[in-house]
Formats: sequence, C-alpha cells, structure tokens
Amino acid sequence: MIPTVEWKNGLVNILDQSLLPEKVEVLVCHDYQTVVEAISNLRVRGAPAIGVTAAMGLALGGQSIHVSSFEEFQREFHVMCDSMSDARPTAVNLFWAIDRMKRVLLHRKEESLSSLQQQLIHEAQTILEEDIQMNQAIGDFGAKLITDGQTILTHCNAGALATAGYGTALGVIRSAWKTKKGIRVIADETRPVLQGARLTAWELQQDGIPVTLITDNAAGALMQQGRIHVCIVGADRIAANGDVVNKIGTYSVAVLAKVHGIPFYVAAPSSTIDVTMASGQDIPIEQRSSTEVTTLHSGRSIAPEGIDVLNPAFDMTPAEYITGIITNRGVVAPHTIATMVS
Amino acid sequence: MIPTVEWKNGLVNILDQSLLPEKVEVLVCHDYQTVVEAISNLRVRGAPAIGVTAAMGLALGGQSIHVSSFEEFQREFHVMCDSMSDARPTAVNLFWAIDRMKRVLLHRKEESLSSLQQQLIHEAQTILEEDIQMNQAIGDFGAKLITDGQTILTHCNAGALATAGYGTALGVIRSAWKTKKGIRVIADETRPVLQGARLTAWELQQDGIPVTLITDNAAGALMQQGRIHVCIVGADRIAANGDVVNKIGTYSVAVLAKVHGIPFYVAAPSSTIDVTMASGQDIPIEQRSSTEVTTLHSGRSIAPEGIDVLNPAFDMTPAEYITGIITNRGVVAPHTIATMVS
Repeated sequence: MIPTVEWKNGLVNILDQSLLPEKVEVLVCHDYQTVVEAISNLRVRGAPAIGVTAAMGLALGGQSIHVSSFEEFQREFHVMCDSMSDARPTAVNLFWAIDRMKRVLLHRKEESLSSLQQQLIHEAQTILEEDIQMNQAIGDFGAKLITDGQTILTHCNAGALATAGYGTALGVIRSAWKTKKGIRVIADETRPVLQGARLTAWELQQDGIPVTLITDNAAGALMQQGRIHVCIVGADRIAANGDVVNKIGTYSVAVLAKVHGIPFYVAAPSSTIDVTMASGQDIPIEQRSSTEVTTLHSGRSIAPEGIDVLNPAFDMTPAEYITGIITNRGVVAPHTIATMVS
Repeated sequence: MIPTVEWKNGLVNILDQSLLPEKVEVLVCHDYQTVVEAISNLRVRGAPAIGVTAAMGLALGGQSIHVSSFEEFQREFHVMCDSMSDARPTAVNLFWAIDRMKRVLLHRKEESLSSLQQQLIHEAQTILEEDIQMNQAIGDFGAKLITDGQTILTHCNAGALATAGYGTALGVIRSAWKTKKGIRVIADETRPVLQGARLTAWELQQDGIPVTLITDNAAGALMQQGRIHVCIVGADRIAANGDVVNKIGTYSVAVLAKVHGIPFYVAAPSSTIDVTMASGQDIPIEQRSSTEVTTLHSGRSIAPEGIDVLNPAFDMTPAEYITGIITNRGVVAPHTIATMVS
C-alpha cells in the first residue's frame, strides 16, 4: 500500500486522498505551502496523519531557508509554523506536531544551519515512525476488546490513511482480524466528504477484511436489529475530562450506541489528547464550505442554488457516552484520559 | 407550483422528482406501465403521492381496456392492479389506493364500460382532492403545536412533492408559517436519494420559508447545541400500535430527539394507517439497489468497485419515541392511532 505521507528524495510525498478510490495519485510537494494546501483541502486528513504531514511539511520548509544566522532561521521557520497552524483548526495533532518541530531548534543555537535542517528531517521521521508504533500498540490493546463473530461499526476513516500507517480505529480492527474469527465491519459512508465510502471501504477491501457500506442514516436501524456489536471511531481532539471531538456524526453514533447498549470506543494516540482543554465544549469546531454539502464529491449540484447551509466538520461526544478510550498506553475510562499524556 | 401529479387531457402528468432541483420536467404518461415505472424509480415518491399516482395510473389503465363484458374488464383491471402493487412494498397508501380503485367496480356490473372508465377517473380525482384536503387539515392541527421562533427539523421530504399538494410534515410547517413569527426549518439532506437536499430545501425555498440544509450527520450536534426545538416527519406506514415506518434515518432522529427532550411528531393522513399490522416489525422494509449508495445522484462512483452494501430504504420508529401523530382528524398519542381510521 502507498504510504499516506513519506519523505522521499528530499521531498514530501502525499497520497492524494481527495481522489480516492477513483484515482490513486501521489502529490509530490516541493515546498511547504503545497503541504499546507494539501492539509487544508483534505488531500490528507485524519488527526494523526495531519500531525505527521505538518511535521514533514515543516522539515521541507526548513530546507528552503537560506540565511546566515540562527535567529533568522528561527524567525523564518516560525513564520512557516504559523502558516501551517492555520491549515485546519480542530485536530490537535497539528499543533502538537508543530510544537515538536519548533522544539528541535531549542538549545541548538550553536549548530550549523545544515545541521538544523537535518535535525528537522530527523524529527519529522521520528514523529512518523512513532505514529505507526503508537497505532500498532492501540491495535493490540483494542483487539482484546473484540470477540469472535462481532460486527464493528466505524464512522469516517480512522485507518492507515488517517495516520502514518496501520490506523487507530482500523488499527484495532486490523489487529483483531489477525486473531479473531468471523469479524465484520460496517462502514458509515460519512457525509459530506464520504471518508467512510471512499477511504474506509477501500482500505479494508484492499486488506481483505469483510466490510459493508451503509449510509449514515442506516446505522440506527442496524443497531435496533441487533446487527452491530461494538462501535470504534477515531478522534480529532480529546479534552482533559474525556470528551471527544471527532468527525460530524460521531455524536449521533455514540447516542444510538448508548440507547442500544452497544459499547462505544474511541481509539487515539496520546498526541490527540489536549489537557489544556478542560472539556469538549472548549474545542474549536471547524465550519467548512457549504459546497461540500450542496455539490457531491466536487461534482454535480444536489441542492437548490443559494440555499443556506450549516456544515460543521466535527461534533463533540461527551465522556459519558464513551465506554473506553483505546490509547497506545492502554484502554482507559474517558475521565482518566489525562493520565495517558506524556 | 407544478402539481406532483395530475389528470390532464386524458393522460397522467407526473413532475419528475428524480431530476429536481436541476431540471423541472413533467413526465406525460400515456399508459399505466409508465406510471408503475415512475413510482418504482422514484420519479414520484412519498407515501401519499404514491397512493394518488397509483390511482391515476389505474384510471389511465382503465381507459385502455377494450373488451365486451364486465368480467373481462374486471379481469384486465385486476392484472393492472397487481402490476401496480409491485411498484414498491413499504408505503401502505399504494395498496390503500389500489383497493379503493378496485372497489369502484363493485356493484357496477350492469353499467356500461365507458361509465366504468369514467368512474375510475372520478375516483382517482376524488383521492387526489381528498389528499390535499387531508393535508390542509393536518397542517391546521399541527400548526397549533408550533410556537413563535421555533426551529423545526424535518427528514426526507414530506411536502407538497410527497403528496397531491400542501404536504404532511411540510403542511404543518406551511400552516405554521402563516401565523407564527420567526420559525425556521432545518432540512436533513437524507441520503441516499437526497430528498431533503433536492426536494424539501427546494420546496421551502420556493415558498420563501427560511430553510437551512444540513447533512444527516449534523442533526445530533445541532440538537446538543439546543438549536432544534421540534422534529416533524412524514410516514410511509403506521402500525396499529403506533409504530411508524418512514425514510431510513427517521429512527435515528427520533432517538436523538428523545435523548435531548425534543418533541418528535409524525404527520400523516389516515390513508397511511394500516391496522392489519399489529406492530412496526410486521411492516415490510424495501431494500433498494446498492448503486443508490455507491454512486452519487446517478452520477460519479464514490465507493470502491464490488463493495458490499446494505441499503434499506426505510426504518421503524417505535411508538415510544413519538410525541404525537398529527392526522387529518387531530393529533393523537401513537397508541391510539387505530381510532383515526375510517
């Protein structure tokens, strides 16, 4: 499988997810601005993948800084960081990765500029490798929660495509698939951007994991009929009290799961936890363009011209709806999530 | 506004809703088979509109029967009725209308064939006119439940386009709009066929009633934020115990409404009540083609080839989730719905 993002020949390669599954195309980024645009326009998405890609983009940006002093280097690098942090507002992994990249310059005042540039690449690579390791740990912890024959509902894409590889929610499913018998996945299509239909269904199909696609509207009926046994989703940001902000529609799935007595798990690396947010209500929710709703997959119009639209990209699921959060350090009750931060 | 369906120059005219809002095109049906196809392929949809259109289609079919005896006429007419009843399985109004058309022939053995043909047209016209009257009654009863400044969520299209005119859920909104101040409508887009985006948003926009379009995924978040005060939907079939089968996703809206303490009303004419069904679980749920999910609005593919799909067109909302059913005879508690049948 083509990596979500990678450092290759001194450039950043991004698998353009906005074209999947129709076209498998790699975007070769020659400057950090192209990386910012790719994050902003959902060519790469998913909180962990956004973090890794931002780090890669900043490493790339660092290579283009040709100045004579550390101070100038740092000044230019911070301008790039500011630009990167405007790419999207909700996933905290973006800001977490930018902070890590900024910290590379700390205590390195005496080093040569080319050494700084190498260190930035090294840090971005480390963030990428750690992300994959965290996902594998999440997968192994989470797989213990799944039993033979279960059908697992997932919303949006929290898979290899949403991370540097392996996935968070789909990491759990991948780990479970290796040892459990007869598990199945139900993928919500996840309007408006259809990450479930375009990415989750594609990713699981490629791995040969049984997957059935449904509209977001059908999840309630399937739960009512006893056809869903567990829900696992990713997260864009987790507050100190265990509230989770994730793709719009996650909250509805969580409410439906609770009403039907179905366990609802969130799978996320420690980089998604933001203890500076006391509760989920403090987390900024991105409002995206109305055209995501009024035109289908950047094509045909499906609503009357001039119609008013509300298009929040995320919603907030209060901790009380979450059975457990599956992190790279173990499965915890939502209200104890702050203990999982390094 | 162009009527959903009408008898015109001896033919049946159907506004082709599958093309809305991009194209406003009337399908002129010269034979009943074209009417069957139009119902089957959602050129006309919505339980009351399906009933009225089926009656019109059978009246049209009746005109083409050229035989010499009542028995032959009745035999051919019943063949047409059987074909019409196969058009779609869930909305009971279809079977109710077919039964009414069959009953036209009762006790008319002695009449001339041309008189029978005239009576069939007359009955179809009566069904159409009664439907509009019932909707206006529903609207007037329901409007009393709405107060100034409320925001009303509706799912799918239960409007003029889903009926012979005026609408059921949107009939309530139309009646409320005349007397209440500052009401607003939130329209769920209603995947997979997007009746909310294509039809409800269009219909309300044409009437100048403030409407905001959202994805189905956003309904929960808006309820959580206190931005929805009441939900009103239509129905495809209501069982004797008050369970309601309606467009897929209705059940999820009802569960979310209950959890948030938001009143959830169903608006439907008495022709939608089926006392032969003891509970909603007895009502057949239509499964429609996977291409409704995998391709967007009969266009571009949005899912990987060969993907498994579940596409139930309807779901069942148990009576306990329904605050009241707004009928043409008044607003009743779901469990007393059987008293509303003639």
